Amino acid sequence: MFDSSKPLILITNDDGINAPGIRFLADVASGYGDVVIIAPLEGMSGMGHAITIKTPLRYKELSHNGNFLQFAVDGTPVDCVKIALRKILKRKPDLLLSGVNHGSNASVNVIYSGTMAAAFEGAMAGIPSVGFSLLDYDHGADLEPLKPFVETIIENTIQKGLPDNVCLNVNFPSVKPPDEIKGIRLCRQALGFWQEDFEERLDPHAQPYFWLRGDFVRVDHGEDTDLAALEKGWVSMVPVHFDFTAHNTMKDFQNWDNISELKTTTTDEETF
Amino acid sequence: MFDSSKPLILITNDDGINAPGIRFLADVASGYGDVVIIAPLEGMSGMGHAITIKTPLRYKELSHNGNFLQFAVDGTPVDCVKIALRKILKRKPDLLLSGVNHGSNASVNVIYSGTMAAAFEGAMAGIPSVGFSLLDYDHGADLEPLKPFVETIIENTIQKGLPDNVCLNVNFPSVKPPDEIKGIRLCRQALGFWQEDFEERLDPHAQPYFWLRGDFVRVDHGEDTDLAALEKGWVSMVPVHFDFTAHNTMKDFQNWDNISELKTTTTDEETF
Repeated sequence: MFDSSKPLILITNDDGINAPGIRFLADVASGYGDVVIIAPLEGMSGMGHAITIKTPLRYKELSHNGNFLQFAVDGTPVDCVKIALRKILKRKPDLLLSGVNHGSNASVNVIYSGTMAAAFEGAMAGIPSVGFSLLDYDHGADLEPLKPFVETIIENTIQKGLPDNVCLNVNFPSVKPPDEIKGIRLCRQALGFWQEDFEERLDPHAQPYFWLRGDFVRVDHGEDTDLAALEKGWVSMVPVHFDFTAHNTMKDFQNWDNISELKTTTTDEETF
Repeated sequence: MFDSSKPLILITNDDGINAPGIRFLADVASGYGDVVIIAPLEGMSGMGHAITIKTPLRYKELSHNGNFLQFAVDGTPVDCVKIALRKILKRKPDLLLSGVNHGSNASVNVIYSGTMAAAFEGAMAGIPSVGFSLLDYDHGADLEPLKPFVETIIENTIQKGLPDNVCLNVNFPSVKPPDEIKGIRLCRQALGFWQEDFEERLDPHAQPYFWLRGDFVRVDHGEDTDLAALEKGWVSMVPVHFDFTAHNTMKDFQNWDNISELKTTTTDEETF
């Protein structure tokens, strides 16, 4: 399929294979290896780490687009990564890039993000993986000013590698003019949440239905957070992992009744 | 709606409002407060943290079931929690219980789990939240032997509270006979992944389609993990959080080129 001496780069997203962000990302990535786009046929925003298990999946190869092959999958971003690795690609990719998404994946948005779910899935498969998002919902937004930052992250990722079981959550600020972005900053994920509301409407049969909408509430104003970096005009880069254990809270359970910890039970070797 | 002196307990799941596990959980919880079931109309396994944003939501109140009200939502588990908190319930619940799911939410399964997504969503809203799952796909499995363990966890959660921004991922082993479960163990999440495969079939029009299936690959054999506890016949209890930052890998990025860290830029105060 490809020149096997070059890195194989898998590109996916959650805005769908026809979104402008994925073309941009593929174009930038094509400077670093052989690019294959394998992405959802339809936009999948808000799909989180959903997988398709009750219905079958299909995919089809689309016509070539410049330097890269492209395949559309009628599933979620995670489905795309799974079927790419197990059915479509002949070898494991050297790099997975997801995006560029429109909207924020900073702070707790990472948990709802299909873009980042694809990056997590890549990391679980041992592939250096990066999700990109731009804090601008306008699909006509000029992405060109993001190019040097995407290149910096691709180059570092290829040359230095990523820690095991870690992927990157990269968000671009909505800076006008966009060439005033200050640089890339390594951050931690800020604490925040969505304060939702539901707009109630009546259908033509006078039955109510509800549209989800919400306002983001920032809780954490730490200067080392992704939200702070973005607010100041930096690109935020958060290394994220899929060990969700709240390790630093283990001690808080010591006063719970009828709960064993390994420490307190290892004297009873026969239970292991 | 209820006796406001009692705890208000929200029950949800991802197997759907008609699954036996949710009735069991509601019955056990009814010993501790006023119970409301607000759950998906249909099974939503594998939905991860998906939310419904492109289509509206609907819900309907079903007939009472014993001691509790119940509402079916045509959305995901996370949708259920959001609409429960913002539209259906008159006050914030004191406890959210999700499940009992059939299948494992241990190890990396937590990331695919709609059951745990509901618990995360509760934790984000500041509600003590617990997700329960049983390592047995048989919907006819006897859940009664799990009752004392569910009670222990409810009692501890009500009396001791949970750390901020933390919920519990509780998994029950498939032990035969089930009354030989050894107890509850506080654990960390084991590292593992799914090795997927896709079964290819042809539709009547000779077009291929693919069913996702997979085998779980255990990578981490640590005795303090959820997988080890479950294997030995213990109930695993992992405190999980939604800060996905891989804090201990921050140092691994110090040799990256053209990346700023807060430490290296705070001398330039004007950029903040």
